[in-house]
Amino acid sequence: MSEWFEMEIRVRYCETDAMGVLHHMNYLAYFEAARTELFRDLGGNYRALEERGFYLVIVKSECNYKKPAHYDDVLTVRVRVSRMSGAKLEHDYEITRGETLIGTGHTILACVDKSGNIHRMSEELLYNENYLPNRES
Amino acid sequence: MSEWFEMEIRVRYCETDAMGVLHHMNYLAYFEAARTELFRDLGGNYRALEERGFYLVIVKSECNYKKPAHYDDVLTVRVRVSRMSGAKLEHDYEITRGETLIGTGHTILACVDKSGNIHRMSEELLYNENYLPNRES
Amino acid sequence: MSEWFEMEIRVRYCETDAMGVLHHMNYLAYFEAARTELFRDLGGNYRALEERGFYLVIVKSECNYKKPAHYDDVLTVRVRVSRMSGAKLEHDYEITRGETLIGTGHTILACVDKSGNIHRMSEELLYNENYLPNRES
Amino acid sequence: MSEWFEMEIRVRYCETDAMGVLHHMNYLAYFEAARTELFRDLGGNYRALEERGFYLVIVKSECNYKKPAHYDDVLTVRVRVSRMSGAKLEHDYEITRGETLIGTGHTILACVDKSGNIHRMSEELLYNENYLPNRES
Repeated sequence: MSEWFEMEIRVRYCETDAMGVLHHMNYLAYFEAARTELFRDLGGNYRALEERGFYLVIVKSECNYKKPAHYDDVLTVRVRVSRMSGAKLEHDYEITRGETLIGTGHTILACVDKSGNIHRMSEELLYNENYLPNRES
Repeated sequence: MSEWFEMEIRVRYCETDAMGVLHHMNYLAYFEAARTELFRDLGGNYRALEERGFYLVIVKSECNYKKPAHYDDVLTVRVRVSRMSGAKLEHDYEITRGETLIGTGHTILACVDKSGNIHRMSEELLYNENYLPNRES
Repeated sequence: MSEWFEMEIRVRYCETDAMGVLHHMNYLAYFEAARTELFRDLGGNYRALEERGFYLVIVKSECNYKKPAHYDDVLTVRVRVSRMSGAKLEHDYEITRGETLIGTGHTILACVDKSGNIHRMSEELLYNENYLPNRES
Repeated sequence: MSEWFEMEIRVRYCETDAMGVLHHMNYLAYFEAARTELFRDLGGNYRALEERGFYLVIVKSECNYKKPAHYDDVLTVRVRVSRMSGAKLEHDYEITRGETLIGTGHTILACVDKSGNIHRMSEELLYNENYLPNRES
């Protein structure tokens, strides 16, 4: 379980929809952008992980939409690792605008290699750029 | 609870990501496209509903990612109303490619008017283009 | 120069913006979807081309926006090859809704292999799935 | 003609495609995001402009793709007003990653009110939040 990490994202015009609000699919994009930054904050680099041949693939996403966000709003996107167990890495998310809660979310990721084999999650695998797990296991 | 309705969607290049697969946020776009067609199939017209001043806003989404989909795949997207109760309209989703289950999902929508007031869901409200609920209620 | 090829695309809710219209970046997505279908219509398969190790990368795009399109509109997207010369493949596009011209466009693509080397365009390269150009050339 | 204004944008995973690069439609999204910031930098506020009942609608876009950008790249997006004449507002764009030119672009916008009437561009209209043009004209 990590601390909460936060970043700001300004809503782009192209991310709004005809209701005049941030379209709900973009919450997943914001979660992903925040996850990238949390990963970096924890000492890793997701791009480098892929270059080593490992991919974090999404297994499940959940999102609760509380209040609409609008074009040009500056949102705070918070993310933390809520659980790492076996092959699964779980994150919690919160999006706020000032004191207003815009939405919350949860995702589960799994780690696979290029052949699609699932790998056990570990801090070494994720954050140590020299670590290569035993492929036999 | 409605019957399953299905439509085909071909994966666009712009919907894939650097892993070479359909990016997970687009599952929500496919669910939404299928929901529009189910709505039409049930005798309604979502665009006309908005023109009458009512909006179905998303309250919650869940998505389970089972197998990757790729550029140019023709996917079958299935949707059904799983529950309509009070202010909530719930849908289930399934995405398949042939016999392969690509993903499943669930969403909860609420009906609001232009002022943001929540309206009770009813088949009349949703599918009868002449129906206007008592705004007092 | 090919004949015009056409396909229908229904505007998705997520493709609209806060002005209530199809957001302009999606014209490029529609052009691309139509290009895929034209490619297939001409006997090729863009996905198979990539599997042979060749990529059509975009060099230039132009788009003229004539009239807005809206959610749930059924648009006709027309595309034709307007020029194939040396390393460049050019396409023209037209988007209409009934008699109304929504937009026009033009793109230039180049063919590169996995190493980023540019390859001369030819009908054989594009549409003959057994053809492999002399990599020395 | 304005000075060049610049902002940084980090490429999101969802903006890449199966070629492993920033998908070309997102250049238009980046141009738009930079335009919003330039507008603010010049003393205006595009969101407030819309709230006054005026919209800048896109008439034409052009984009030249020079070099690919990748996930997690930090790009510099530059924008300037290149021309304001009658009903048209034109912008130039440049995207770079360090010394590498990723792409260039040009857009033409027109100003319309809620009824779709075209309004003459002026610095007052765009940047003075109290200014309301003579609707008779």
